[in-house]
Amino acid sequence: MDCVQHIDSAKVNEGDEKDVELQNQRDKSIEGQRLLILTDEQPWKPWKRSRSWVKECLVRVRCVMGSLMGMEWYCFATLGVLTAFLSFLMDLSVAKLLRAHQWLYSQLEGHCLLQFLCWTLYPVSLSALSTSFSQSICPFSAGSGVPEVRTILSGVDMPHYLSLTNLFAKYVGLICTLAAGSTVFLGKVGPFVHLSTMVGAYLNQLCTVLRGEKEERTEGAMLVVAAAVGVASCFGAPISGVLFSVEVMSSHFALKDYCPCFFAAACGALTFHLLSMWSGEQETLQALFQTSFSDDLPFYPLEIPVFAILGLLCGAGSCIYLFCHRWILLFIKTNKILIKVLSTEKALYSAMVVFLLASVTFPLSAGQYMASKLTIKQLLSSLLDSRQWTSQSHNASMVLQPNLCPWSEWISSGNPYLTLGFFLFMKLWMLVLACTLPLPAGYFMPVFIYGAAAFSGAVTHTLSPALLALELTGQSTHAAPILLATLVANALARSGQRPSFYDALSISKKLPHLPSLLKVCPRLSSVPIGKVLGPRGPVLERAAGPTEVQQVLNTCSQTQIPVVDTLDSQILLGSINRSDLQTFLCHNHNKVLKKQLVDMCSIQPVSVQLSPDTTVQEAHGILSVLCGESLFVTERGRLSGVVTWPEMKRMMADLADDL
Amino acid sequence: MDCVQHIDSAKVNEGDEKDVELQNQRDKSIEGQRLLILTDEQPWKPWKRSRSWVKECLVRVRCVMGSLMGMEWYCFATLGVLTAFLSFLMDLSVAKLLRAHQWLYSQLEGHCLLQFLCWTLYPVSLSALSTSFSQSICPFSAGSGVPEVRTILSGVDMPHYLSLTNLFAKYVGLICTLAAGSTVFLGKVGPFVHLSTMVGAYLNQLCTVLRGEKEERTEGAMLVVAAAVGVASCFGAPISGVLFSVEVMSSHFALKDYCPCFFAAACGALTFHLLSMWSGEQETLQALFQTSFSDDLPFYPLEIPVFAILGLLCGAGSCIYLFCHRWILLFIKTNKILIKVLSTEKALYSAMVVFLLASVTFPLSAGQYMASKLTIKQLLSSLLDSRQWTSQSHNASMVLQPNLCPWSEWISSGNPYLTLGFFLFMKLWMLVLACTLPLPAGYFMPVFIYGAAAFSGAVTHTLSPALLALELTGQSTHAAPILLATLVANALARSGQRPSFYDALSISKKLPHLPSLLKVCPRLSSVPIGKVLGPRGPVLERAAGPTEVQQVLNTCSQTQIPVVDTLDSQILLGSINRSDLQTFLCHNHNKVLKKQLVDMCSIQPVSVQLSPDTTVQEAHGILSVLCGESLFVTERGRLSGVVTWPEMKRMMADLADDL
Repeated sequence: MDCVQHIDSAKVNEGDEKDVELQNQRDKSIEGQRLLILTDEQPWKPWKRSRSWVKECLVRVRCVMGSLMGMEWYCFATLGVLTAFLSFLMDLSVAKLLRAHQWLYSQLEGHCLLQFLCWTLYPVSLSALSTSFSQSICPFSAGSGVPEVRTILSGVDMPHYLSLTNLFAKYVGLICTLAAGSTVFLGKVGPFVHLSTMVGAYLNQLCTVLRGEKEERTEGAMLVVAAAVGVASCFGAPISGVLFSVEVMSSHFALKDYCPCFFAAACGALTFHLLSMWSGEQETLQALFQTSFSDDLPFYPLEIPVFAILGLLCGAGSCIYLFCHRWILLFIKTNKILIKVLSTEKALYSAMVVFLLASVTFPLSAGQYMASKLTIKQLLSSLLDSRQWTSQSHNASMVLQPNLCPWSEWISSGNPYLTLGFFLFMKLWMLVLACTLPLPAGYFMPVFIYGAAAFSGAVTHTLSPALLALELTGQSTHAAPILLATLVANALARSGQRPSFYDALSISKKLPHLPSLLKVCPRLSSVPIGKVLGPRGPVLERAAGPTEVQQVLNTCSQTQIPVVDTLDSQILLGSINRSDLQTFLCHNHNKVLKKQLVDMCSIQPVSVQLSPDTTVQEAHGILSVLCGESLFVTERGRLSGVVTWPEMKRMMADLADDL
Repeated sequence: MDCVQHIDSAKVNEGDEKDVELQNQRDKSIEGQRLLILTDEQPWKPWKRSRSWVKECLVRVRCVMGSLMGMEWYCFATLGVLTAFLSFLMDLSVAKLLRAHQWLYSQLEGHCLLQFLCWTLYPVSLSALSTSFSQSICPFSAGSGVPEVRTILSGVDMPHYLSLTNLFAKYVGLICTLAAGSTVFLGKVGPFVHLSTMVGAYLNQLCTVLRGEKEERTEGAMLVVAAAVGVASCFGAPISGVLFSVEVMSSHFALKDYCPCFFAAACGALTFHLLSMWSGEQETLQALFQTSFSDDLPFYPLEIPVFAILGLLCGAGSCIYLFCHRWILLFIKTNKILIKVLSTEKALYSAMVVFLLASVTFPLSAGQYMASKLTIKQLLSSLLDSRQWTSQSHNASMVLQPNLCPWSEWISSGNPYLTLGFFLFMKLWMLVLACTLPLPAGYFMPVFIYGAAAFSGAVTHTLSPALLALELTGQSTHAAPILLATLVANALARSGQRPSFYDALSISKKLPHLPSLLKVCPRLSSVPIGKVLGPRGPVLERAAGPTEVQQVLNTCSQTQIPVVDTLDSQILLGSINRSDLQTFLCHNHNKVLKKQLVDMCSIQPVSVQLSPDTTVQEAHGILSVLCGESLFVTERGRLSGVVTWPEMKRMMADLADDL
């Protein structure tokens, strides 16, 4: 029935479009800027009949789709498919660019200088391009984006980071970065989570328009799902994707997002596998980096302590790495020359750093000890290769340690252990240096290659790398030892309140992300909200007339205005929506008789009140769990402040400044 | 330094034990009953010197352990190891009992009547024993326990379900039930989650005593972890265990429980694998039910719609199953004869039902068409066997459908498809009937065998069966199709607000589990708390004297007493702990000068206040997220009620009665 009404109204409205237009303009001025995708209020409109027919069809399709399942589920599926498609397209173009570089290099065989120039200038120009492109189109697109996504998921609104411009800049920039190859040694997981979040935010707006609603109900859910999809469609690993999105949340994971996460991640992973298959990269849908360790004899029980020790080593390594990373972040922010260069000549800085890295990795110089000819994907494959260097029978520790195979690249220098040691030492400082490049790039994959599951888990303080290792290799028999090593490494890395990789980035970028702040400064958890709460903002008394309402509407931009009993008593009664107040004003303009606020508007009761002694951490938690727009702080029933997300953001910024 | 002090005080206190005893008695009378495990206040004490030496050593060990990591981590590890040990021990005894039955049956070959008696009376006596044992020792031990665990995890206190008596009764009863074999066709997952929760609760008390604290800080965390461990140590599948514990939560999963869950689950899974290996059941630590599908060619893309259709079929099947289950639950509760039998002669009822089931499955009668000689474990192995009946090449759908292998048991009747059809039809009503037995048993495993991942996911409205299937088989290459089928089946099963298997049990048992109630009656979500809130209970005014305090302490048992400005205004100021009030009374008894409450006690501010218009669902969510003991409901600053977990339990019981 509802469908038929829709179609009828669509037909009827064809005639009086001007009214609609006027109404729309009024709506616009009231509602502020809103994205209108399916608008048809252009002044000049040809093919009235066919357009109305198409419209009818669309409405019918929407009805049929809506009756099957909620519109948001289509959006989740689309999100998965779209992100997987983007991921596949990126892999394809990066592979082509890398092959071009390798071809050029091999053609110059014999000309040492030319080879050097080719080896260095190709990544230099690509990273300079990446930097200047992303910086000029959208400066927010630099970096991995995971700290920003974590902040957004914790509830803070950061529209710049979710714009379509950013999506475009980040996508193209990331292709250039990845095409620079193993010299720059950066990955794609982090940026892909960010890209997926942007796609998710965009699809959510579309979904809202399709459902004809004004509020964006599912924004939070869509972003959580997008984080899962990002990882899932990067490697076709759905389960670790979902676990990543659980881990990335700040304090609580809402169960209602659980099924959508799995659904979208499964769609993404399936699409990614299918695309890879059809492109001829993989013959069938197998694990991406299939390992061939024996299933029947995965490991001896006596090896379990060895795994634990490996975990400890990785944990210790991660502490060193994180220390270096924090040091360089601080160095960049305090060194005057670097500040000057990075504020004006970002592309030059990128070019210089990459030139340094490329010179070091040049195969005819130090690069010969580092297997520098291999691409990141080849490195990952060689990490997971089951062949052994020596005849020792520690066949299972492969997955946990960069036991690389005796490829020609690795044994060229004679002793593979020496190569490995040199590789680990060189890559450490190179990786730390590469993390400072102002271009879109992921820092997870290099860390994963550098030290595999346990190391990357310790660096990021998460467990999903262990799952990722399992899903990538298809070796679920090693679940328990990998988990054990990752847990041990994590325990070591987390001890002593050290911030994780992402925490350090959040703090360095001054993002309003409370869990990161708390890791650096635990005493913040006991700061009462009354101490940092700003001025209260305007309120209305229940007997307010149109003049007061108009004044309040002019001075503040909140969507919920608190209503108190009288301005003297300040006893909180509840809140009124901004739109209700506007209706109140309209009615009062039309009818001349002046009415009081309480006679015409229904005051919404406030379900949760905070007291000034609530800690900031508690308030943050309640705000994230309730998904509410504002929380009122009362003292003995009297309103003393309002906590909204912008206010929370300001408070966190203040706290971060005090550090 | 702290350690040394501890040791010193331990030495000094040796002498004046009587004082300690007195102090302890006082503490006991004040604190109420508390479990004291490491007490040494027995009246007669030999070997003073050696005891003090042991004590010293223990304190030293505690110091060393405590400096390495928090005491709770040892508890988590112990929980994992202990549960895995219990699980292994149970498997071992069940296997022995089953082998005895099979041996007896094979010895009677040729004597048809004797064979029939052996076939039927063995499970009948075992299930009657299980029923009478569990019912006489602890009536709460019957059933799977998952609905109760869900309720406990949602925050409601149900001490009867976590007692040691229950642990013992459930463990022994479950062994008997499982030993009854494939006739009764019940599993061990659910009860194991419950057993693990009981072990967890016990370990938590131990942990609290070890740390010398009075409050049980980590109770919630320990129970969440225990749920993960239950699944993990049942099959050695850590990841699906953790996902199960995420799914079993009512609305939000706290991130702080994430690492402990993984840690304990990994410990449990590792122990289980190691024990299995040492017992000679498995030669090495491989996947429990290793499959041998080809890794290189897992499935063709065209098979994906087939998986989706399989998911739909499973979803539809689950709806039928759930409908039958709900019907029989209602039938048992309304049929007068059954009510009478079940209230007095539970063992007789079990015996009768099992005799019926056993007669039907007798291999020489209808049982020959149902492969009834196979045990549950053999059934599971045959389900996952890769051999095919026919030469059709649908090699991957194996995991999703009970395509059983051409064992002699299955092809004895000629047509395996006929056998399968008959098997499915017979097992459906037998399973529904078996679910009514009043003995400790799990309903997940039979459902899993009946319809594999997608079906069991749909029946329980969860996704972790898909993960379990992956972990059990070690076939991560099939992740995407299994997930897809499970998601489709879930979508079908969840449509139309149908309750899941556990929801139906929760409602039938009238457990105060809000999500279950909401599924049956969605309008409950909008009930304001003011409508169902009971009377407010006693309050104190800030100027209260000892008489009022004594009166309040006598009349109520809450741990936090609200304090209002004056009894007339009822403006809420905060709350005072019960122990503070007791101190206040003691001081006032000792010193004769009478002081007011506000002069001596610090009033704790109330961080969150609810209004009477808060819905019950919101209040429930806030109560679970905050882990607080009581929430105060205020109206314009005046106290109008207190929401505690017992109060919430009463409200939910009221709401359930109204259904």
